[in-house]
This record gives sequence, C-alpha cells and structure tokens, in this order.
Amino acid sequence: MTTINGERLLGDLRHLRSIGAVDNGVVRPAFSEADMNARRWLRGQFEAAGLTTTLDGVGNVFGTSSNPGPALLLGSHSDTQPTGGWLDGALGVVYGLEVARALAEDSATRRLAVDVIALQDEESRFVGCLGSRSLCGLLAPDVESTAVDRDGVRLVDALREAGLADTPRTRLEPARYAGFLEAHIEQGPHLEADGRRIGVVTSIVGLGGLRLTFAGQQNHAGTTMMHLRKDAASALFALASAINETFPKIAGPRTVWTMGRAVVHPGAASIVPGYAELDLQYRDPSEAVLDVLEAEVDRLAQEVSSRGGAKVSVEPARDRIAPVEMDRTLRKHLGAAAERSAPGQWIEMPSGAYHDSGVISEVLPTAMLFIPSIGGISHDFAEDSHDDDIVLGCQVLADATAAILSG
Amino acid sequence: MTTINGERLLGDLRHLRSIGAVDNGVVRPAFSEADMNARRWLRGQFEAAGLTTTLDGVGNVFGTSSNPGPALLLGSHSDTQPTGGWLDGALGVVYGLEVARALAEDSATRRLAVDVIALQDEESRFVGCLGSRSLCGLLAPDVESTAVDRDGVRLVDALREAGLADTPRTRLEPARYAGFLEAHIEQGPHLEADGRRIGVVTSIVGLGGLRLTFAGQQNHAGTTMMHLRKDAASALFALASAINETFPKIAGPRTVWTMGRAVVHPGAASIVPGYAELDLQYRDPSEAVLDVLEAEVDRLAQEVSSRGGAKVSVEPARDRIAPVEMDRTLRKHLGAAAERSAPGQWIEMPSGAYHDSGVISEVLPTAMLFIPSIGGISHDFAEDSHDDDIVLGCQVLADATAAILSG
Repeated sequence: MTTINGERLLGDLRHLRSIGAVDNGVVRPAFSEADMNARRWLRGQFEAAGLTTTLDGVGNVFGTSSNPGPALLLGSHSDTQPTGGWLDGALGVVYGLEVARALAEDSATRRLAVDVIALQDEESRFVGCLGSRSLCGLLAPDVESTAVDRDGVRLVDALREAGLADTPRTRLEPARYAGFLEAHIEQGPHLEADGRRIGVVTSIVGLGGLRLTFAGQQNHAGTTMMHLRKDAASALFALASAINETFPKIAGPRTVWTMGRAVVHPGAASIVPGYAELDLQYRDPSEAVLDVLEAEVDRLAQEVSSRGGAKVSVEPARDRIAPVEMDRTLRKHLGAAAERSAPGQWIEMPSGAYHDSGVISEVLPTAMLFIPSIGGISHDFAEDSHDDDIVLGCQVLADATAAILSG
Repeated sequence: MTTINGERLLGDLRHLRSIGAVDNGVVRPAFSEADMNARRWLRGQFEAAGLTTTLDGVGNVFGTSSNPGPALLLGSHSDTQPTGGWLDGALGVVYGLEVARALAEDSATRRLAVDVIALQDEESRFVGCLGSRSLCGLLAPDVESTAVDRDGVRLVDALREAGLADTPRTRLEPARYAGFLEAHIEQGPHLEADGRRIGVVTSIVGLGGLRLTFAGQQNHAGTTMMHLRKDAASALFALASAINETFPKIAGPRTVWTMGRAVVHPGAASIVPGYAELDLQYRDPSEAVLDVLEAEVDRLAQEVSSRGGAKVSVEPARDRIAPVEMDRTLRKHLGAAAERSAPGQWIEMPSGAYHDSGVISEVLPTAMLFIPSIGGISHDFAEDSHDDDIVLGCQVLADATAAILSG
C-alpha cells in the first residue's frame, strides 16, 4: 500500500493555518484577502503535485489529474467561519492534495486519476456551499445580485473585489468520476468519547427550521392584572418548555433540536411583552422523524394559542434540507481502509453538521470520513485534533482512494 | 360646597397637552424644551391663582398659598414618558391648580391654605421621582454627576442646559402641612371594568426585581447530542415556565409578576445558547408576599440548576420598593367626597403603579385619587379619560380638600 507523507501533510496544514491566523484560530472567511491568498497558495501546491489547476469564477480551486478516468474527486472547503478553527474544511483539502501526491509518487498507483478541489464559502458568508453548488449547477441565476453578507456586501461586489468578475465557473463533468470523497473533522464529541479514531459517515442529517411568533398585548406591568394579560413572553416560555418536554418522547436516537434565538419585545422589566419570536431548528437522519416533530410543534402551538393569552403562529424559517445517505460502495471502501489501519477503532455514524458532500451527492456517489475533534469543539479558535489522528485519517483516505480506483 | 370650573379645568389640561403634543400623545420628558416650557406656563398659572411661585433647582414648580397652615399640598408630575399620554401626571397638577383657584374664589373656603406642585422626572429619565425625592431630602448627594439618561446625558448637564445650575432646591416644611393629595389616572382597567368613576387608593404596591442568569456551554446545534448539552435557553424556558405555574398557588389576589426581558446569547438558530438572562419583576401590596415569591424563585432556580444543564444564578435587579399604605384619615375624606358626588360609583383599590405619593408619604400623610383610564391604556399616545370623569375627579378632590382643611 502507498504510504502518505505525514510530515508533509502536517507541514502544509500548518502553512495553510498561517494564512489568516489569529491566536490559535483562523479568520479566513470566503473572498477575504486571507481566503484568496490561501487559494492562490493551494493552487500552487496543486500545480506542484502535477495537477492542471484553475481558480474559477466563484473561487473554487480545482486540480485535475492528466490521467484518464474514472477519477475520484477529493477535497473540501478552505474558507472559515468569521472566527474559525484551523482544521474544519482545510483538513479535507490538504488530505486531497497529499493523497494525490502520494499516489502519484508510487509506481503502483501513479496511473490512478485523483482530482482535488478547495471549495468556496461552505460557511455561508453569502450562500452556504456556494462553491459546491456552483460546481454542480445548483446556484440560482441571480445569486450574484441577491446574495448579501451580514454587513450588506453583495456577492457581485465581493467577486469583483477578489478579481473574479470575468473568470468562468467550473462545472463538474460527472461522467469522469467514480465519486467524491470528503474528509472532515467530526466537530462533535462522539469519536473521542467512544475511543474511536475514524468515523465513516452513513448520512448527513436533514434539517428543518420554524419561526414561532407570539402576538399578545403590550401593557403596564404594575396595573395589568394577571388574568387580563396577553403576555407574549409567557406564551413563548410555555411553548418552548412543552417542546422540550414532548420531543424526547417522539424523537429518534440521533434527533437534536435547538431554540437558539428568542426575542421578547419591547424587552423592559416593567412592560408586559406584546410580541415575541422563537426560532426552533431540528435535525435527524430520517425525513419521517422531521415530519413528526413539525406536526407536534403545530399541535403544541395550537394548544398554547387556545389558552387565550398570546396568539401563536408557526412559519418555516428556512427551506428544509433533506437527509442525504452516503454511497454504500464508497462507505464500504472507507470502512475497509479504516479497519486495516485502525482495527476496531472506527465506527459508522451520521453527520450532525451539513457539508459540501450533501450538495455533491446530488450529482456524484459521495462519502465522508471523520477524524476526532478534541473535546468536540469546532467553529472556535480552540478547535484541534491530535497529529496522529490527522495522519491516520489521511492514510485511510489514500488507501480507500487507491482501492476504489483500482477496483 | 365649592364647585370647580370644569371648562377652565379642561381648557388648562388641553393647553398643557399642546406643549409637546405629537399626534394624540405628548412628548415632554423631564428637562426637554417642551417640559421646561410647560413648567414656565404652569408657574404663570399658579401665580395667576394667587400663589407665590418658585421653579426650583430640579425643575419642581411650587405654588404656595399666603394663607397660614395647616395646608394641604396638591399635585403630581408634569413630565411625560418619552412617548407618553396627555393625562398621566398632568391631570393631578392641573387638578391642584383648579382646586386652589376654586377654593380661593369661594368666600367659604378662601382662607384655606392649598399649595400646589408640579413635580419633576417621575418618569425616570434620570432618577424616578427626582422632584419628590429632592423635595423630601431623599436624593443621594452625588446624584447630579452619577445619574445618566439612556443617551448618556448626565443630570448635571441637563440641569445646566435647562438653566437650573445655580437655582436653589425647595425642601418641604412638613410642619406646615396636614398632608399631600395626588390625583392620577388609574393606568389600568379596573375602574372602567367595574363601572366605577373614582378609586380611592389604599396602598401603593411594593415591587421587587430579580435578574436570573443562565450559564451553559455554547455548542454546535447539529453535532452536540441532547444529553451532552448545557443549553442556557432551555434552562431559562424551564425556570420561566415553572415560575408561571407555581406563582398562582402562592400569590395574593393582587399579585402581578412579569418576565419582560429575556436575552439568549449568541442568539443564532444553529448555535446551542451558552448564556441567557431573564428579568423577573413582581408587585404586591404586602411585603410578606414579596418575600414568599422571592424564596420560591430561589427554590425553583436551584431545582433547574440541579438538573445538570445550565447553572442558574439569582441576583436582585433593583432595590426593593416597599409597599406604602395611604393615610387612613385622608382616605376617609376622599371616600366621603366620592360618595357625595358619585354615590356607589367609587371603590377603594391598591395602586399597581408607583407614584410620587410613595416618596412623599415618607414625610407627610398622603393619599391618592384615581379616575378611570379608557381601556386601561397608559404610557401610550392613546391614553385618555372621559371629560365627565375628569371633571368629577377634580370636584371630589376639591370637596375632600375643603373638608380636610375645615375639619
């Protein structure tokens, strides 16, 4: 089997970390100066690995092997959260680079076709998974003028600023590929807690979001007796508690739900709130479970509304993301490679977070590999993984890639 | 009995309304140009009523009868909320003016000593009840430099701007007075709902406030399983619901409680909240009930904390305001006058809102008279009362004043 070069891998990851480094973290949001510098550096590394490279019109860095297909596409995204960790998507990009290099250096595998990609804006500065959506032809035609970041910058202006205004966008040619493999840190605590070193992803969970609004009557907190109130906040507290009490009875083993945003208006201690909003998000590998949760929210909202206080309304807060199952053949190869390098120390698991793989699975067979996150921490300067886990994950990816393309 | 001049009363109230009028409401916060214009106009009216007037160093307009005591002090505040109603405190100020005029015009009562006051900043731009606190010697010595409004303006600068920097402050001489009577709109729905036209206030309810903080662990909403979360918002929802379920069992018939401010951090749909705050305010005529409520919050907070999610802390959000009982002799006179003009159409009732009477009761026998608020609305441009209720209330105040001072 081809052995990857662990020192070279770690060296490249550390160099990439230095572009946009702040303390132990990285600030490299999509189209920032650091992001574009990182992309130009990655392009140079892809080129040095013998790949034919492009930096496309949305910032994707694409390296294509001159070997004929069937090829595997490897990679992830190199942009970060506004205050992100150093591994996140960067890990999967540099894994792809190292696997391409290592297989090309080995006479037994140098004829295999490994393409590598560094995708753009997975972290939603403008559009979540912008790069993979563009690659797969799934972007809205007017996205450049309609997509705006949190500071009001339009995507079209960010593209011009980044020098990409007149650059063509690369589209994937599915006929060339046997599939797409994305490696990523777990961003959760399961592998570490379980004493496992590799996770083979079974599915990316689906996600739904509702906005619950509570319309009551604003009033003086001293002079309005309790039975006359239509208190929007109290209705919110009642519904949120009912959700937290009821969901465990109807949820699946991997269901998660979060009420991360609650706003009470006008928000003064001595005013009975007249209006409130609550955002509820829920994720599960099964679409049927998501349906059950949504129906239960409707039922509980009607129950709280019927008490005669504030009136509760339920609206979708976002388009639902359907759960995505990973390709079974690719998973089998990842599992076999994991068992070879880390016998008994790997598991199959769903991904609770969304990834570019969710998009690319619409056009290619797709699978994902996780390595452990220390303390489960991600999207934070403290995000980290152990060096030996980083090296092991890349070896597993290289072995699976070789097996799939030689198969 | 002396009959007040209803047309003159309504005319003066409408003129006062025109100073700072916006739509149907009034914008006349303490020390604003409109507020100072209103005070200068009121001073002229007090002067025209034969009173000796001062505009003192905190903006109180004081009109003193030349008749010897024992005197009654009548009045309220003429400042408004940032977007206030036209009656609120203005009603009680113009009632005082009209009662002083009407009694002075009647040979049977012209020797009675009626002093009138328009107090300053009851509505807490800088310090709640600033004017009455100053009058009673209850202001902190450093208040000018420490009190700041919501825009960061210091009281000392507002006083200089209003031309009051070198003006002495008037102190009440308790020996002169038989007591203080304050008329006010109810600011609540009870009188209207009950079909009553006059409320004689038994007590001003006490008020306590707690700030509940919830310290959890911020996390990714997709990858953090439910049993591993320390969700600050869920702890807040649980405690708020428990309070709303438990308080009715331990509260008195007039207890009110409000959770008017809730903040969830960082407040994003896909992040498990790591921190949250909830403000709880509660009011009751009995100090013992306030004690019971506070003890119950401590118990419930410990219970929620002990579930192992977010850690709950309970801190006072403000100094407690003790309930204040109104003077029984003055109440008896107000009740007798009400029964004369509106037989069977008055009630005794607590005041759910705080008033300058709460401060002045510390140095003088004090009582309050309410007239109905249409729809219970106050602190809003829509605040209003019926003309015949306005006139009736002033007649009751005049009769009670004459009876107390003649008695």
